[in-house]
Amino acid sequence: MTTTAQNQLIAFVRDRFGDKAVTTDTRDIAPWTTDWRDRFHGSAPAILSPASTGEAAAIVAKARELGVPIVPQGGNTSMVGGATPPADGSALILSLRRMNRIRSLSADDNLAVAEAGVVLEVLHNAAIEAGRRFPLTLGAKGSATVGGLVSTNAGGTQVLRHGTMRALVAGVEAVLPDGSVHDGLSALKKDNRGYDLNQLLIGAEGTIGVVTAASLKLVPAVARHAVAWVGLDDPQAALGLLRTLQGASDSIESFEIIPGDSLALVLEHIPDTRSPLAGTHRWHALIEAVTTDADAPAPQDLLETRIAEAIESGTVADAVIAASEAQAEAFWRIRHSLSEAERAAGPAVQHDISVPVADMPRFMVEAAAAAEKRYPGTHATAFGHLGDGNVHFHVRAPADADPDRWYEKEAPGVSRFVNDLVVAAGGSISAEHGIGQMKLHELERLASPARLAALRAIKHALDPAGICNPGKLVALAPNGNAP
Amino acid sequence: MTTTAQNQLIAFVRDRFGDKAVTTDTRDIAPWTTDWRDRFHGSAPAILSPASTGEAAAIVAKARELGVPIVPQGGNTSMVGGATPPADGSALILSLRRMNRIRSLSADDNLAVAEAGVVLEVLHNAAIEAGRRFPLTLGAKGSATVGGLVSTNAGGTQVLRHGTMRALVAGVEAVLPDGSVHDGLSALKKDNRGYDLNQLLIGAEGTIGVVTAASLKLVPAVARHAVAWVGLDDPQAALGLLRTLQGASDSIESFEIIPGDSLALVLEHIPDTRSPLAGTHRWHALIEAVTTDADAPAPQDLLETRIAEAIESGTVADAVIAASEAQAEAFWRIRHSLSEAERAAGPAVQHDISVPVADMPRFMVEAAAAAEKRYPGTHATAFGHLGDGNVHFHVRAPADADPDRWYEKEAPGVSRFVNDLVVAAGGSISAEHGIGQMKLHELERLASPARLAALRAIKHALDPAGICNPGKLVALAPNGNAP
Repeated sequence: MTTTAQNQLIAFVRDRFGDKAVTTDTRDIAPWTTDWRDRFHGSAPAILSPASTGEAAAIVAKARELGVPIVPQGGNTSMVGGATPPADGSALILSLRRMNRIRSLSADDNLAVAEAGVVLEVLHNAAIEAGRRFPLTLGAKGSATVGGLVSTNAGGTQVLRHGTMRALVAGVEAVLPDGSVHDGLSALKKDNRGYDLNQLLIGAEGTIGVVTAASLKLVPAVARHAVAWVGLDDPQAALGLLRTLQGASDSIESFEIIPGDSLALVLEHIPDTRSPLAGTHRWHALIEAVTTDADAPAPQDLLETRIAEAIESGTVADAVIAASEAQAEAFWRIRHSLSEAERAAGPAVQHDISVPVADMPRFMVEAAAAAEKRYPGTHATAFGHLGDGNVHFHVRAPADADPDRWYEKEAPGVSRFVNDLVVAAGGSISAEHGIGQMKLHELERLASPARLAALRAIKHALDPAGICNPGKLVALAPNGNAP
Repeated sequence: MTTTAQNQLIAFVRDRFGDKAVTTDTRDIAPWTTDWRDRFHGSAPAILSPASTGEAAAIVAKARELGVPIVPQGGNTSMVGGATPPADGSALILSLRRMNRIRSLSADDNLAVAEAGVVLEVLHNAAIEAGRRFPLTLGAKGSATVGGLVSTNAGGTQVLRHGTMRALVAGVEAVLPDGSVHDGLSALKKDNRGYDLNQLLIGAEGTIGVVTAASLKLVPAVARHAVAWVGLDDPQAALGLLRTLQGASDSIESFEIIPGDSLALVLEHIPDTRSPLAGTHRWHALIEAVTTDADAPAPQDLLETRIAEAIESGTVADAVIAASEAQAEAFWRIRHSLSEAERAAGPAVQHDISVPVADMPRFMVEAAAAAEKRYPGTHATAFGHLGDGNVHFHVRAPADADPDRWYEKEAPGVSRFVNDLVVAAGGSISAEHGIGQMKLHELERLASPARLAALRAIKHALDPAGICNPGKLVALAPNGNAP
């Protein structure tokens, strides 16, 4: 049922910005009211699609005036239900997908200004055409958009060298909850004019404004790269290898850790995959080194020399360096298939967590053992971005359990158990996926009173009516006050 | 006159934390109530000096309860009156200087945790002893402290390669205005748990909390470096040279631009200085290249080769590369003496401004011409961090004017004129010094309504009673509401 206020907002947008700016057909809306993992199911009577920052600002101002909440949405690839509207249909979706222009791209300045709806892969290609690179990538690159990447401070597999979105954003343009426009696009390398609103908007998940565009930093194009697959005994050896490589060169761009069990699942469930190494190993690392200067020492030589030394010293058991682009891609395909293979093996409670890098090897092993002990029959594994201190920690249902019933019954308890371990290790319960609606209650349970009070105060100060992405990241009471 | 509430706070601190935590002798207080440039003169009945985060938290909580404002202070080297208490004696100074421990320093993790009162030079030396480097430096390194550097997002002469403090801070510990402690020290490379409070506190000038410690990123020690002095015709040629050098190598750490007139002032007013080049040039650049890997191409070779090419192509008129450490230091001494030499030449209205890097060469020339035309007889110069798009823009009194009277009469108008040019160029009226009390009114005049409303909302939300560094950065009305 659409409320009067919602109808007024819909009529306002159609009248001012035309039919293209409004979608009310339920069949067209349906794909955008569920997250891509099919965990969160929302409802929205309309999708509003501004074509410009001015249109977005007018829509937010009107929404504020009418008291209609809006849910900003890009590619709808949130891992935490961050872009799914509430189930009660109280909010409209504000889609940024029509704002998909790359406003400028300067190879000289190493900067691109991209609107919120630009798809990551499109940005990648535009940068490559200009002889540059935008050095952040992730599985959903064909759908994820700039606005969502900024709003979730997205990570991915190149964070080790280039940082998360926060490190790659030079400026932000956003519509604030009162409909005013924050123009922070001017790419100033130094700017100390008070609280950094750009930084505040990065990772804010659309709860205190709608990101409409960003200035993004580009880096030189890749000249040469090399990809290695390594077998080792434990995560501590992997971290030792990483530090050796980083000490020798700043070319290490990815360092992913993969348990032997997870590799086995990929080989079992994903067609056309084969193990890079002949033997079996308890742990594996996937390493990519990249140079931008054709005259620099070849990354292949670096990996060969250092890994050979590591084999000699016993740190590494076995290794292979990709001999072709096809082989390099095959190695990466294994890494990118991990989630799908795990899913094929049954439902797992998933956690995207971080602890200080130095503590991660021990944490991975000890937390997995603790979870399996506390939940007998489960299988706990961690894989991912070892060099960033960030792994995806999965606890899979016991083989003899009805997997769906087990998940429904145990998932909240398992998550609390794992998150408690993370907090005890000084870590974060959301490393790169954000809070969204999935982790809202765990954040409230585990964050320090100081942090929670500050989050609520900021949300209430900037969005007192609670119209921006309600129910995500930090909850306001229905009266708009801190609960 | 000390108020009852102030006396209660002083008694509370003395009683709880001993005599060392309280200074009430006016002779001991005097040096800390005036900024080091002697522009801002405040008054405070006491300096409170906690020895730990717990003590600082208790003091802030009590100050909040009693409604007594506090002014956080480190080395008192603010360029904008940011650490000077109000003139009416309503606030107490909260000195962080007793909190001067380096809590930890790990060469393996490339991290140091330093308390707010650690002096920058002490941190430099501790990092060097561990075979690492903290890559931010500035003229006041012997006095400036970590808390102030974080709270002002300090810059300096190595920003080109290593960024401002924001890029070097991995975590922040702070006492929030309600006396709670934000513990954000855990150096997580990825952490997406809502609005980034660390980022919010960096550059907040102590107005929404008191920084008590920071996790700081270290980099490898310098293996080799080279320093060049270059004569050129204009800033555009300088930027061209910088881009050539940056295209060839990522070792360029400093690139400072110096007008010929400013060099002449140094040679005239600073003892034991001599021009690095034989001839005279309209502009000069001071360049430093640094490598951390002894096997990498020598920075000296890079500078020699590329600068020789630039001389051949006519971009550069003349150049010399320091042949010894003593010569390198002599080049840098010229750069660091610019402000002193300018002062000796008479009072100047000074601006710390930034525009996008690509626009800076034109801005420097055109803004200087415009200022001299608008204020006949004045001399306008810009020098500093060309590669960061940040220069210090000075407008000096006419030779025939009474300099002090001229300054008093004209400075506000000159600043407004220059700041208008900066805003028209999409720049910032505070690149690296912050707002403090000096630029408060210009920020209110020039910031967009969206930005100002957001700054006020955040200040009001986190410090509703206005007890943290009152009258700095953003003003609250006396009732604690946004004005």
